[in-house]
Amino acid sequence: MTETTKQLKPDKQQSSNEIRMPGPVVAICGGVGGAKLALGLYRILEPDALSIIINTGDDFEHLGLHISPDIDTVTYTLADLNNKETGWGRRDETWTFMKSLEALDAETWFMLGDGDLAIHVERSRRLAGGESLSAITASFARNLGISANLLPMTNDKFSTVVKTKQGVLSFQDYFVRQQAKPCVERIDFDGIDSASPSDEVLAAVSQPNLSAIIICPSNPFLSIDPILSVPGIKQAIRASSAPVVCISPLIGGHAVKGPTAKIMTELSFPATASAIENHYSELIDGLIIDLVDRDESVDISRPNLVTKTLMNSTEDREELARAALKFAKSL
Amino acid sequence: MTETTKQLKPDKQQSSNEIRMPGPVVAICGGVGGAKLALGLYRILEPDALSIIINTGDDFEHLGLHISPDIDTVTYTLADLNNKETGWGRRDETWTFMKSLEALDAETWFMLGDGDLAIHVERSRRLAGGESLSAITASFARNLGISANLLPMTNDKFSTVVKTKQGVLSFQDYFVRQQAKPCVERIDFDGIDSASPSDEVLAAVSQPNLSAIIICPSNPFLSIDPILSVPGIKQAIRASSAPVVCISPLIGGHAVKGPTAKIMTELSFPATASAIENHYSELIDGLIIDLVDRDESVDISRPNLVTKTLMNSTEDREELARAALKFAKSL
Repeated sequence: MTETTKQLKPDKQQSSNEIRMPGPVVAICGGVGGAKLALGLYRILEPDALSIIINTGDDFEHLGLHISPDIDTVTYTLADLNNKETGWGRRDETWTFMKSLEALDAETWFMLGDGDLAIHVERSRRLAGGESLSAITASFARNLGISANLLPMTNDKFSTVVKTKQGVLSFQDYFVRQQAKPCVERIDFDGIDSASPSDEVLAAVSQPNLSAIIICPSNPFLSIDPILSVPGIKQAIRASSAPVVCISPLIGGHAVKGPTAKIMTELSFPATASAIENHYSELIDGLIIDLVDRDESVDISRPNLVTKTLMNSTEDREELARAALKFAKSL
Repeated sequence: MTETTKQLKPDKQQSSNEIRMPGPVVAICGGVGGAKLALGLYRILEPDALSIIINTGDDFEHLGLHISPDIDTVTYTLADLNNKETGWGRRDETWTFMKSLEALDAETWFMLGDGDLAIHVERSRRLAGGESLSAITASFARNLGISANLLPMTNDKFSTVVKTKQGVLSFQDYFVRQQAKPCVERIDFDGIDSASPSDEVLAAVSQPNLSAIIICPSNPFLSIDPILSVPGIKQAIRASSAPVVCISPLIGGHAVKGPTAKIMTELSFPATASAIENHYSELIDGLIIDLVDRDESVDISRPNLVTKTLMNSTEDREELARAALKFAKSL
């Protein structure tokens, strides 16, 4: 990254004192919740020090366009283009396309803002032209002035599928069209056997001087598990000497946003910090839980940090990111 | 068409007294200029009486989307969605997509409004799903409350290519990107040998009670010739007993809009009414020329009508349409 593009980044410009880690950092994240911590990490780390491995299990084709919801959420968040009110989509968005689409009696259950459309149309065009999702994601990030490495977990077809009491649903059908209401019985990953991590993902996790791997407070089942299930990623994380720290997405048995706790209950999985620890038991060296859950600390066998994990403000995001990196350093 | 959808059509609602022709009417047209007369015909004819055969030689793929400029111009014009100020695109349009696209460093030479995008995205999706351009065009027209039959000249791949002193250019490259500035040496139609008219086009021209075929004042080389060159269309027109009337697109040696006169000069074709007559000599039974060109009437061997052909207002469009139909009736 050149000094010029760095200065174009609105969020990065406002960042408070950077944290100096001995080496680069990898974050593993899904959409909205994870992107908040990713932004915190991005703002306090030196340029280019952060690589973010992003879930593509939610990717789907809609209206003939390839949509990558989590990649876009992270991209918009780091480029300061995200809509802070809705939590999804872009700010200063217009909706003329949707109105016009409705008049054609086309499918309108998935909201596509006019500005948002550009990323889907241009991505689809470049994918059809043979470029990889990795290359396209990196190019968009560069154009939008982002100096972190945004890494789709895989360039292969991989779809999260939700088996519910109402039948097997594609992720977006379950999550958006049915508003995560159907009771979840099982979560499957279509394409899991033939998918492999992108070279960039393996390279990021295998950096010899890596100083931390942070599992962001994303939905473990729908956002993190898809990433960890891509053959080779879990092995690469285990092979790394960097400490792996997970921030629990639960606060007092509830998820801040989204259906994490509801799904845990449906899958007969206790919505507790120690259940989160068990879920990642093969991988993590330490767990961060919220102040509200301080009493659960005794149930956690690994090193843990009790701190405020709710991220309302940009300062909260930076605070938690700083705490997570310091905690990792201590492990 | 049901009575309900008819009542939804804003333009049709305002139409003044309808003209009663003994049978249906076919119009042959390209983009902006032709669409003006097509609207006039649409407004004065009974619902369902009008079929419009539209040029698809300008169709192209852009950003992975199938764009049909002339079909869209006619569709928007008849649905009263067209932008009267610019002459192209939709009214009440927003441009968030283009701004966002620019930030991604994508191609922005072809302006795509946010509302306009819906028709391209949905058309592309349905084409990829195996539907024909004819079926999609008819469905959009129905959804937008248009009771005329909008007929793409062909469902096959057919591209107008302009050979210029600067090399061979695709139509949109020549017309939009290069603003029709390069000197034209020849116009070719890629796909001409394997294209055939859609069934709907042949059916429209072959209606036994057809009362008129109107060649709209569109560019003869770039808008009408592509249609007439689709193998079978010219023959079907000749086989029809309906009178064929052409409205000259020239007024005092100039085209109202677009590069018609410039191209005629470049192709060493005199920009006169009699040259237009010669151009269509195999087909037409009568020619309509503008009042400004009344002196040229003596050079025209076929029956001709001298009238105001400039269409500034909706009334002008209806007037000229009425004059054309009366003239056709008289032949």
